[in-house]
Order: sequence, then C-alpha cells, then structure tokens
Amino acid sequence: VTIDLVLVGFGNVAKRFVTLLAERDATLRRDYGAAVRIVGIATKRHGQIFSTRGVDPGAFATASAPRETNRPLTSVEFIRRATRASRAAARQGRLVVVETTTLDIRRGEPAIAHVRTALAGGAHVVTANKGPAAFAHRALARAATQAGRRFLFEGAVMDGIPIFNLVRETLTAVNVAGFRGIVNSTTNFILTGMEQGQSFESALLEMQARGIAEADPSLDVDGWDAAAKTAAMANVFLGAAITPQDVQREGVTPAAAARAQTARASGRRLKLVASAAREGRRVRARVALEELEASDLLAGVEGQQNAVILRTDLLDEIAIVQQGGGLTHTAYALLSDLLTIVRGASRRPPRAAPRGRSL
Amino acid sequence: VTIDLVLVGFGNVAKRFVTLLAERDATLRRDYGAAVRIVGIATKRHGQIFSTRGVDPGAFATASAPRETNRPLTSVEFIRRATRASRAAARQGRLVVVETTTLDIRRGEPAIAHVRTALAGGAHVVTANKGPAAFAHRALARAATQAGRRFLFEGAVMDGIPIFNLVRETLTAVNVAGFRGIVNSTTNFILTGMEQGQSFESALLEMQARGIAEADPSLDVDGWDAAAKTAAMANVFLGAAITPQDVQREGVTPAAAARAQTARASGRRLKLVASAAREGRRVRARVALEELEASDLLAGVEGQQNAVILRTDLLDEIAIVQQGGGLTHTAYALLSDLLTIVRGASRRPPRAAPRGRSL
Repeated sequence: VTIDLVLVGFGNVAKRFVTLLAERDATLRRDYGAAVRIVGIATKRHGQIFSTRGVDPGAFATASAPRETNRPLTSVEFIRRATRASRAAARQGRLVVVETTTLDIRRGEPAIAHVRTALAGGAHVVTANKGPAAFAHRALARAATQAGRRFLFEGAVMDGIPIFNLVRETLTAVNVAGFRGIVNSTTNFILTGMEQGQSFESALLEMQARGIAEADPSLDVDGWDAAAKTAAMANVFLGAAITPQDVQREGVTPAAAARAQTARASGRRLKLVASAAREGRRVRARVALEELEASDLLAGVEGQQNAVILRTDLLDEIAIVQQGGGLTHTAYALLSDLLTIVRGASRRPPRAAPRGRSL
Repeated sequence: VTIDLVLVGFGNVAKRFVTLLAERDATLRRDYGAAVRIVGIATKRHGQIFSTRGVDPGAFATASAPRETNRPLTSVEFIRRATRASRAAARQGRLVVVETTTLDIRRGEPAIAHVRTALAGGAHVVTANKGPAAFAHRALARAATQAGRRFLFEGAVMDGIPIFNLVRETLTAVNVAGFRGIVNSTTNFILTGMEQGQSFESALLEMQARGIAEADPSLDVDGWDAAAKTAAMANVFLGAAITPQDVQREGVTPAAAARAQTARASGRRLKLVASAAREGRRVRARVALEELEASDLLAGVEGQQNAVILRTDLLDEIAIVQQGGGLTHTAYALLSDLLTIVRGASRRPPRAAPRGRSL
C-alpha cells in the first residue's frame, strides 16, 4: 500500500521526519508492505507545493521562493484542496495529513482547524502540536471516529516516548485515575541548574543555545507548555474536556532559586509538577512548584529528562521516563503515529466512506 | 465473538484472572464485542474439567476431588484433547490456552510443550510463565507465526506492567540495543532492607509472609528468576536465542549486607542489575550486583519496585517503572494479552491477511 502524506508545517521537526522516513524506508516496506509518498507541503513563509504524483521535499527544502502557487492559499484551504485532489487515496484510507505547526496557546488555532479539515476530507491526522488535544480533544476524537479515521498526537507530550500509545495500546482494560509528571524540559533544566548555583538567565541561555528553549521562552517558563500538555493528558486519560486555561498554573522565575537550593539542602527537590486527577465528576489539573521527597521518582528527574507517573486501578502506579530528547524523538513520534495508521490499514478495511468528502 | 479459554494451571494467578475477567466483563463486551467462556481447566493436583459448553471455575475452585476424569491426563495430553474437541473455535481463531504453571528453571518444561501443543492445536497461547520465552522464544514465535496464532507472555517480566507490549505495540520502528533493569522484587527488597540494618533472613521472611517470595526462595535469591527474565527480554528485544543458563549470574547473600551499607554510606546503592546488550553478533546477558551512582534511575528503585531501562537507537533511553506489584498485576498481564488477541481477532480474519489485498 502507498501512503500519501500532506505535510502542513515544514520546520525542523517535519524535515527530520522526512529524513527519518527515508532511513526507515526498508522497515516500512518489509514489515508493513507500505511505501510512503509525500504529495503536498504547506509552509508558513516558503509557499506550498502539491502533486498527486508526489513532490520532492529535498528540492523544496532548499528553495527559498514560493513554489507552484504564486499566491499561497490559507493552510486550511490548502488542506481542503489537497484532500479533495487526493480523494481516491482518502477513500482508501491511505491519505495522512502530518501537522507540525507551532502551538497557539490562546485557542489552539489554526491547528484545530487543520485537524478538522483533514478529517472532513477523509484523511488521517498525525500532529506534533499540543493544541488540538489540549483544546479540543473530545470534539476531534469524535470527528475522527465518525470519519473512520485516526487523530493521533504522540509527539504532544514527551516527544516520541510513547505515553499516549502506552495507554491506548497496552493499558486497554486499565482505568487511569490520575497522573503526575515533569513534562517541560526547559523549566526542569533551569531548576536543576539553579539548585547548583547557576543563574536563571544562564540556564535559560544554555537551553536556548541547545535549541530546546524557544527564542521567546515565555511559553516554557510561564508554565503554559506544561499546562497544554497537562490538559492534553487529562482530556485523553481522564476523559476531561478542559483547555490549558483551566489548568491551575505556576511557572519558574529567578525567585525560585532560593527555594530550590533550600529544598536541596534538606534532601528534597523543587520541581515543576504537572498533575491531574478526578475529583468526583470533575477533573482538577494543575502545574505547580512542589517540594518532593527524595524517594519520589519525580525528584530524580534531572535536567532535560521528563517523566509521567500514571495512577491506575489495576496496576497501581506506572512510570515512564524519558532520559533524553531532541528533534529525532519528536520526528519519531510522527513516524510511530503513522505506523499505527499503517497497521490499522493493513488489518482491516476502512469503514464506510468518510462523510463530507464532497467538500 | 465468544472466546473460549482453556486454563492450564489453576493456582492463585489463574483464580485472580478468572475473577478479573468477571470484573471486566462489561468492558470486554462493550469495547470489544467479546464474551469469554472457560471451557477447560487442568490443575496439577485437583484434576481436570472440560466441556465445550463451558465449565464453572467457581464450583471447580471449591471442589477438592478430581472431576470429570478419574485418571487425569498429562497436561500436554489434556491440551491436545481440549484443542481437538474445540477445533471449531480453534479454526475461527477464538480459542486461547492460558498457561500459568510454575517455572522450571532447568529446561522450562512442561510449559514449552504446553505452548507447542496449544499452537499445534490452533489455539492462541497466553502465559505468565517465564520459561517458554526464556528457553525457547525463537522456536515458539516461529511456530506461532506458522500457525497464524499469537504467543504472548506479558506477565513474564514486571507482572502486568507492559514491557513486552510497550516494545511490540509502541516502539515498532525503534531498535533496542540493550537494556538494564531491576526485575526481581524479593532480592531488591532484601537489599533495601539490609542497607538499613535489617538482616537477610528477616527481610526474606517478610517477603514470604507477604506472599511475594516462594517457600523455597532459592530461585529468587540465587538470581535464577532474574536470569530467566533477562533471557526472555534478550530473546525478544535483541533477537537472541539464549537460555537462563547463558546468563552470567549472581545472587544476593547475607554477605552482601556490608557492601550494601558501605555503598549507601557513600551515596551509592547496591542493586542486583539484570542487563543485556549486543556485542558484535552475540548478545551478552548478566545478572550482577552493581554499585550504582545516586543519579542512576535504577538506584532509586526501592523495595518491591521493578524497572527496566531500554537503550534504543532513536529515542535514547526509555525507562518504565513498576511502583507496586501483586496478584492482580500478574492476572492483568494475562487479561492484557487476551485483549491483544481479541483486538487482532476483531480486526482481521484469524489467518494472516493476504498480501497486497487492497485496503
């Protein structure tokens, strides 16, 4: 089977995803009988390209001028036209929109519209953007079910470390009652540094130099990134319908240095902990600085490491820990979601033709 | 679909599995459209029972005399006859042999024969016994593929914590280069206790009282249990074909107390670490006492906790940590393997889908 991909967003993650696809091409063909072809790319500033016969992302990546379309379409209109032009692939369940635009922390747009439009066009959707799951998981999951297509977002939390996959594929008969985790690398790195006497600014600069923190680090240090991840996990694991704004939120400031050092001196650790739990019929979610006992697994999560501890009914607590991170991890998240789709496609015929195909 | 189960072994794990099935009956029916029926039970000392119309494990559990068969069959012969009598269910891919006999550390028998016989009879096999994967994974996996049936053993390591599932279902495009872990609760509990001045004997008695350690604890304290788990993981994750005898092995003795205390005094921890890695074309596996730096995730694995750290090519290191254990965990492992089969059965015809068939 040939899987047709439409890339919406073509930054570093998408580019690494493309090279990773090439590196794992043999695995895809041998283990899944699947060949992958890129049929469309929409970038923010470097134009758009589309051809049902396939496009060359390598050539596109090096070109600086807009291609194919002189007046670029909006990204939503691009997806609408691309899925319409690929309707045969869409009908056969082998069209996938790979969404890697950046997070908008106010409303999660236009990523949510990208997902909706792709599903309406009969495509599966894979995204590394936290927005759709953090702001609109319930509606988008329902839209995906109705369309008989997948909406997957493994890369939204802990890069490629399989947290959503873990729950969906391996804990199917387990109920998750809550979770606690350290899910933002920049703030964890800053806290670890400040404990040891490094200044807030110096630790932040180090993370920016390594490409982990953004030039505008406010999403990280203000706790918004962690809040978006917390909302996404609460929505998926606990069936909540919250947004990042509903997450009680605290960030990391230079003022936390003294507290981090005092905690450390007494054998404890100051950590920015993301957590959520059911409280009656509601879900309470928060991101807060907490002083943890040394025996707490999260206390030992250092520097760029991330971890999530799931509290379950049958298996007590299960922790999954990410020891390293980076571009390849996030790119792998997209690949792993793609493989989930390919495995599904090879196992069963697609459901009835998706609604809204006539867009 | 109705799944017919043949239980081979009917100790505490199997009994908890049966009650867990009842507890999750609604989930099975609603989420999977599956009803589960027990058609046969073979015990070691309390006889055997079989009926294609279903048997009552509750009644059987309370009866002490052998039932149905006055002269019990061998367990292998029981499986042969049971699969033959259930051949319609077997042909339809809805017959599952649930194997929970105890580990034989010399050869892994008769569990291996149980698996072979079940697969040959067209049944899927689920086992909590480490033996088959530790001694004969390659041959049994091949037999399963040839039969178009599953051979699953999530409970062999870390009870129900999904370590085999994690790799199989969520790390499909990742190569595992090696692993390190703490996989035996009894020895880890003893080491933690001895660090704090508890005697070896007292810690061991405590584990026996809690039902974690066996009356004959030699498999645990001599490192054999950990070696069997190491062999199973090496065989599955690294494609090895080793047995527990090929694992370089060390156990925990009262003499380790002083070393554990000295390590602790200097901020380090003495742990019984199971590990394996590829070395050229061979796989080197061992179970050994190691002094770990405090920053090592395994150093913080206390008491009955277990953990495995996978070293991968794309995602660096991923750790999965079990914070608690017990009978329900192991019973869940069987249930989770059963659900893997049910999901497969509902997605595709029991025989491998023909290649190249359109989506």
